[in-house]
Amino acid sequence: MRKFHIVLVMLACIQNASAKNPLPSWNDGQAKQSIITFVDRVTAEDSESFVPVDERIAVFDNDGTLWCEFPLPNQAAFALDEIKRMLPENPEWKDEPAVAGLISGDVASLKADHNAGLIKLLALTHAGITPDTFDSRVENWLQTAKHPRFDCSYRKVIYQPMLELLEYLRTNQFETWIVSGGGQDFMRVFAEETYGIPPQQIIGSYGKLKYELIDGKPMLTKTLDSLFVDDKEGKPVAIAQFIGRRPIACFGNSDGDQAMMEYTTIDNPRPSFGLIVHHTDADREYAYDSNPSSSGKLTTALEAAPQRGWTVVDMKQDWKTVFPDQADEGL
Amino acid sequence: MRKFHIVLVMLACIQNASAKNPLPSWNDGQAKQSIITFVDRVTAEDSESFVPVDERIAVFDNDGTLWCEFPLPNQAAFALDEIKRMLPENPEWKDEPAVAGLISGDVASLKADHNAGLIKLLALTHAGITPDTFDSRVENWLQTAKHPRFDCSYRKVIYQPMLELLEYLRTNQFETWIVSGGGQDFMRVFAEETYGIPPQQIIGSYGKLKYELIDGKPMLTKTLDSLFVDDKEGKPVAIAQFIGRRPIACFGNSDGDQAMMEYTTIDNPRPSFGLIVHHTDADREYAYDSNPSSSGKLTTALEAAPQRGWTVVDMKQDWKTVFPDQADEGL
Ligand SMILES: [Ca+2]
Ligand SMILES: [Ca+2]
Repeated sequence: MRKFHIVLVMLACIQNASAKNPLPSWNDGQAKQSIITFVDRVTAEDSESFVPVDERIAVFDNDGTLWCEFPLPNQAAFALDEIKRMLPENPEWKDEPAVAGLISGDVASLKADHNAGLIKLLALTHAGITPDTFDSRVENWLQTAKHPRFDCSYRKVIYQPMLELLEYLRTNQFETWIVSGGGQDFMRVFAEETYGIPPQQIIGSYGKLKYELIDGKPMLTKTLDSLFVDDKEGKPVAIAQFIGRRPIACFGNSDGDQAMMEYTTIDNPRPSFGLIVHHTDADREYAYDSNPSSSGKLTTALEAAPQRGWTVVDMKQDWKTVFPDQADEGL
Repeated sequence: MRKFHIVLVMLACIQNASAKNPLPSWNDGQAKQSIITFVDRVTAEDSESFVPVDERIAVFDNDGTLWCEFPLPNQAAFALDEIKRMLPENPEWKDEPAVAGLISGDVASLKADHNAGLIKLLALTHAGITPDTFDSRVENWLQTAKHPRFDCSYRKVIYQPMLELLEYLRTNQFETWIVSGGGQDFMRVFAEETYGIPPQQIIGSYGKLKYELIDGKPMLTKTLDSLFVDDKEGKPVAIAQFIGRRPIACFGNSDGDQAMMEYTTIDNPRPSFGLIVHHTDADREYAYDSNPSSSGKLTTALEAAPQRGWTVVDMKQDWKTVFPDQADEGL
């Protein structure tokens, strides 16, 4: 008992040390201050606003919140690269309208007919294979593909201030989750190393798997059956289904996150916090909101922010650096 | 760095102290020994069988593995009690064949026509309400209902040896999960307090939720849409979907667990462990396998056990006590 107490005291010392300047890539200002004020409130023991450790759940969108989503969501870039990689061995794919549209550069047509083209491309690149095969394809792509503007691995177009925020929350005994419209399996390949978030804390869109014993060995196959799209109203639904507990902090960047922001912050018996990353920095990253050329449309959630008390991050003003490499040596 | 090292040393001391007699309600014998041998193997640093902490995932079935499933699965007892409780205010329910069958004691007819009667009862008791309403109904039931044979709360017909096993695994830095055919929301009401397993580590059967803003407030409603049945092949599918990582230890009691036992133990690159609880103790609990009067049929998994190297617990021989109260004062 005494030993355990000593351990707790020492853990507390370590935490205080690393908490001295918890968000170095954030400029001083209202956004940074609102985060720190919230964390101080819910971790202050003997206060009414204290939240027990078990209930410190924080949920993060991924595309545009933790990493860049321009000029295309990174997973779409992966799917397009995969089609091109596999086309020589599957020449019949050229007769697919979706693939033909892709080759001719007519990406817009993929969205016609309820995204029929996109779903066809997903079927060719994300289904009919084992999770292990899929994972190694994603891994290979991440090791070779480069972001067209920043000319670096997609693993590096992540936001340094958000990495610090994840770490700061975990230091304060929050459990950090991803709740993204992106593919669950796709994110699980890199999120543990990149964000420190293990697979079981990553919720995304997913299709049902098929399980069989083949030649006496267990085999899972990815399918697009019962496709669950983890976006908009799907986000609070998935949170209830996977976590079973209401978050107290929510971080997003688009109207697709509005439902989980509402679910987190309205009528929550616990103190709660919502934050929107507003992309305002065309020089260092991108500037977009109501009319993005990629994903990330932000109109109604931005309008609702003042009334809801959500913090809006002005990327240009609030972030000292955008990507991790800038912090060290320039991008 | 030095401080951190001291903390690690002290944590190790604490673990050693509590590990001296980790499974006191297990009789010495092959079953107990196989558990300890496995845990020692995967936690021995500098050994080839060492498994990193992140990959120490253990999955447990619930009904018949962590708590009693006779004379009815406890959740079925809840549904029946709920129908009876609500019937006076819903007299029209009497015209439902499922409810009429229930009142007349004809429980078998509920399974006719692909479980149509059971699904109707589920719809009346598990859907069309918010998760909060459902949770408080389960909570009320747990506080008042008594197990018909043991005349105690359903919260107490849990297996003391399995509680010790959960704790032993967690002490050795395993993450313990439930993967059960029972309802996810039902288990999440009591599993944290009862088993020390938080909601986000509980996988079960579930229907899709509906999310809406009603009068400006976020509202989730339980439905039976897209019902996912977390049994048989559904178990490895759900493990891949929720955890995204292959378990190294699996605990079950019926053929419904065979697929996740296979998924855990066959062709796993890590050392792995499977264990079946065989109900052999009609005096202290129940004895059943191939022809149970409730759930829990155990034939093919029991046959496969020797070939697969799965440990089979003989409840009568291997467990010193069955329920927690016996350990203190007799049941
Ligand atoms: Ca986004
Ligand atoms: Ca069972």
